Amino acid sequence: MGFPFQVGDSAEVTREITQEDVQAFASLSGDDNPLHLDASFAARTRFRQPIAHGMLTASLISAVIGTRLPGPGGIYLSQELKFVRPVFIGDRVTARAEILDIRPDKPILRLRTTCINQRGETVITGEAVVMYEPSAEAGRV
Amino acid sequence: MGFPFQVGDSAEVTREITQEDVQAFASLSGDDNPLHLDASFAARTRFRQPIAHGMLTASLISAVIGTRLPGPGGIYLSQELKFVRPVFIGDRVTARAEILDIRPDKPILRLRTTCINQRGETVITGEAVVMYEPSAEAGRV
Repeated sequence: MGFPFQVGDSAEVTREITQEDVQAFASLSGDDNPLHLDASFAARTRFRQPIAHGMLTASLISAVIGTRLPGPGGIYLSQELKFVRPVFIGDRVTARAEILDIRPDKPILRLRTTCINQRGETVITGEAVVMYEPSAEAGRV
Repeated sequence: MGFPFQVGDSAEVTREITQEDVQAFASLSGDDNPLHLDASFAARTRFRQPIAHGMLTASLISAVIGTRLPGPGGIYLSQELKFVRPVFIGDRVTARAEILDIRPDKPILRLRTTCINQRGETVITGEAVVMYEPSAEAGRV
């Protein structure tokens, strides 16, 4: 079976980050930092209003990798994240992954991973390394 | 106001990763990779059974940083994650952060971030960089 990807391939997902998402991530992770949940606390910070958890926004990168590129059969080996701008409640974020290189000896992809808001501003940069195990995918019913 | 941390300070949180957590993360992120949700798909992979999303486990690091060290007033600048072992449903994971250094010129901490399972095996390694903005915290009621 050939390796179904090449350098330069890319995929993305877009999602609005809602108040409900921030509440759900706080409950799920236990990260109830008031910077994300308490408008009066957030008003005293440089952001002036609550911001989404960085890892909530980063979870959209997980969605691109787990569902699109490489999708099922992909196994996360590493992820670097730089949180370069805040994401506010109601922002619409596009997470994008692009293959930077493919190891010649193993089915391991390195991807540039970027999240951009509805104003075209980059909010997260970084890279992921993902192994692709096609046996699972090939055997899928 | 003095800087209330020093190199070597550490904090941790422990959580069981349940089937409900994995389902909730899949819904929240959109990452419905069957490796996490479908036992028959996972049975054909090297893991033999569903594993938790790497970013779900990593969200426990967000909890340590957002609630304990530095806690409220902490702002995530970056996070590196290496997913070195799978986390299975029902595993009990301890996420730990330890201050590696503090910038002399700015309130910026570099932390070693590690997740360990109930067998003492490391599942995630990495580092975080976090800014600490005490004004928000100091003004808290």
